[in-house]
Amino acid sequence: MKTRLYTPGPTMVPEQVSLEMAAPIIHHRTPEFSKVLQSCHEGLQYLFQTKNPVLMLTCSGTGAMEGAVVSVLSRSTLTLVVRGGKFGERWGEICAAYGVPFVPLDVPWGESVTAEQLEEALVANPGVRAVCLTQSETSTGALNDIKALAAVVKKRNALCLVDSITGCGVHELRVDEWGIDVAVTGSQKGLMLPPGLAFAALSDEAWEAVKRTDLPSYYLSFAKHRKSWEKTTTPWTPAITLLTGLARALEMIRSEGLEKLWERHQTMAEAMRQAVRTLGLPLFPRVPANVQTVIALPDGLDYSRLSKQLFNVYGMKTAGGQDQLTGKILRVAHLGYLDDGDIVAGVSFLERALADVGWKVNSGEAVAAAQRVLSRTPAAQ
Amino acid sequence: MKTRLYTPGPTMVPEQVSLEMAAPIIHHRTPEFSKVLQSCHEGLQYLFQTKNPVLMLTCSGTGAMEGAVVSVLSRSTLTLVVRGGKFGERWGEICAAYGVPFVPLDVPWGESVTAEQLEEALVANPGVRAVCLTQSETSTGALNDIKALAAVVKKRNALCLVDSITGCGVHELRVDEWGIDVAVTGSQKGLMLPPGLAFAALSDEAWEAVKRTDLPSYYLSFAKHRKSWEKTTTPWTPAITLLTGLARALEMIRSEGLEKLWERHQTMAEAMRQAVRTLGLPLFPRVPANVQTVIALPDGLDYSRLSKQLFNVYGMKTAGGQDQLTGKILRVAHLGYLDDGDIVAGVSFLERALADVGWKVNSGEAVAAAQRVLSRTPAAQ
Repeated sequence: MKTRLYTPGPTMVPEQVSLEMAAPIIHHRTPEFSKVLQSCHEGLQYLFQTKNPVLMLTCSGTGAMEGAVVSVLSRSTLTLVVRGGKFGERWGEICAAYGVPFVPLDVPWGESVTAEQLEEALVANPGVRAVCLTQSETSTGALNDIKALAAVVKKRNALCLVDSITGCGVHELRVDEWGIDVAVTGSQKGLMLPPGLAFAALSDEAWEAVKRTDLPSYYLSFAKHRKSWEKTTTPWTPAITLLTGLARALEMIRSEGLEKLWERHQTMAEAMRQAVRTLGLPLFPRVPANVQTVIALPDGLDYSRLSKQLFNVYGMKTAGGQDQLTGKILRVAHLGYLDDGDIVAGVSFLERALADVGWKVNSGEAVAAAQRVLSRTPAAQ
Repeated sequence: MKTRLYTPGPTMVPEQVSLEMAAPIIHHRTPEFSKVLQSCHEGLQYLFQTKNPVLMLTCSGTGAMEGAVVSVLSRSTLTLVVRGGKFGERWGEICAAYGVPFVPLDVPWGESVTAEQLEEALVANPGVRAVCLTQSETSTGALNDIKALAAVVKKRNALCLVDSITGCGVHELRVDEWGIDVAVTGSQKGLMLPPGLAFAALSDEAWEAVKRTDLPSYYLSFAKHRKSWEKTTTPWTPAITLLTGLARALEMIRSEGLEKLWERHQTMAEAMRQAVRTLGLPLFPRVPANVQTVIALPDGLDYSRLSKQLFNVYGMKTAGGQDQLTGKILRVAHLGYLDDGDIVAGVSFLERALADVGWKVNSGEAVAAAQRVLSRTPAAQ
């Protein structure tokens, strides 16, 4: 059976990228590989919209979050951590592991934090010198408005750390223009690669903080990675094949263009959301990210039965809820290497699987609803 | 041009493993992927000769070394670090980064540490509770006799940490039988995979130490990895494609059998060493590991010219010296996915490149010398 990943990571890998990575491996201390690194450097600066170096780490996105904490914060940096899901909580867990004092700003799962809430929290905690945010909270599907939030953080002269792991390559992200101090992402999301690489873009102010940190680090040290970056090399043996794939994936992104890429994800997400509404199903997040459509499962619609039907019969792999959301939501992701056709296919399978498990469906209505949204804009090239 | 890697990492990846990794990516929270993990668990226990879990981390070998230090040692663990090259020094750098107090036992680069030297150092430093060793010191080509050294460490009731990054899958390694407390390796060496994964096997005593550590960690935490291992999952999104490749590579190793694998590397190394001696070139390490043949370049034999001739004309990629050995040695590695034919080819290219750069060579003598060694045992199946 043909299977398709509608999951928020890993996402589908373009065939040409997979084959690039299957080519005979090259050594990493060669002019040939330096060219790959150079190409990745430029592509990542474009992706993050920054003039500063974007570090490439061999680890998962969590490793880059940890690298950010231990490289940019210090034992005395009072940090505000916005927690609206599993990944917001992760910032707090990493701070706790290293003894970085933090104040949580908790919003209910599914909600986004507003600029007003953040400002209030910063006024109430005037000692805060850093704020940890999540652009797309993958566990709930909620989008946080990083542009507005970063402006609040910068006004109070604190460092703004952003987990853009599922946001980057899907939603607008302008590191330099928006005043973001650290933005991190992983390879297996909008970058369309297998997992194993993570990336971090830092502002000049963040680089100054790197010089002052008193937290211990070695493998994930941003200082060590920066030093190697300057010489177009890496501090440790990197995931060579994933980096050759990255160079290729970044070429695809540059060729599409960031504005078009963001627009494509916007259109695909709107189409899927419209289809879900047509099916009579509620969306879980109040302000949904374009990364995935998160359905709040009504009584009588069993997650396990539905997701198994989708995968076993239609080859459509979706994700469920984690922690407190286990069994309560279905996550249909649409980021990375997908086009309009994949959206129509996904809606079609969703319609049929819902009917299979006894949900009342007027066959074709959701597909038609998605189709009307998709037809508003020309198909992506 | 056909190129061949005679480098101590990355090493050549078998075509069937590359193609396995190029297959459509699967999600990591599925029964399908659990089977991959289960197969890796079993294969790694065989490779390390241990009944305990072998952790799989998404990072380079250095990340696993750091994971070992921060998970198994503590701020008060006085540690003896044997330093006979760049990688022995790395143990010390990691200890220093986390404030683990350590006593260095320095041996000249190219030398191996003896059981007597180690015993003496432990007698002189009775407070030592852990010892960091390097099986195959990749920067010099020296082999350390881990079986004998671990026995000395265990007699003094200290923890024995072994960097087996280039040793594992080449030299005999028996974690349980030899009383090793932590052994680590990376994917891009004897395991024939691209870089991006690292592994760690721990003794029961080491697992007890994990419970007591007061050092901070998160992404590389062995405690977190162990907890997930028990559930046949991973704490973070792992390098999925590399793990599917690992399952395949471990199958190849199990099918060859460890004893035959060690013997193959022994034969290949002896053949290359004999060829090098025939060429009138001295070996650098006193006790050479079977990982690579490290040539001490005599006056008049320029590293840069020779290595470029080897690569540009014959497609033979070798490695040079690092740090104090820059320009002084040529490293011809022969580990992983190589057979007798690759050794003969390598010797042939080495002969010809040497002649090209003006070294006096009796054409065919070195190839014949290698051939005589290889012919003593049947070709590997």
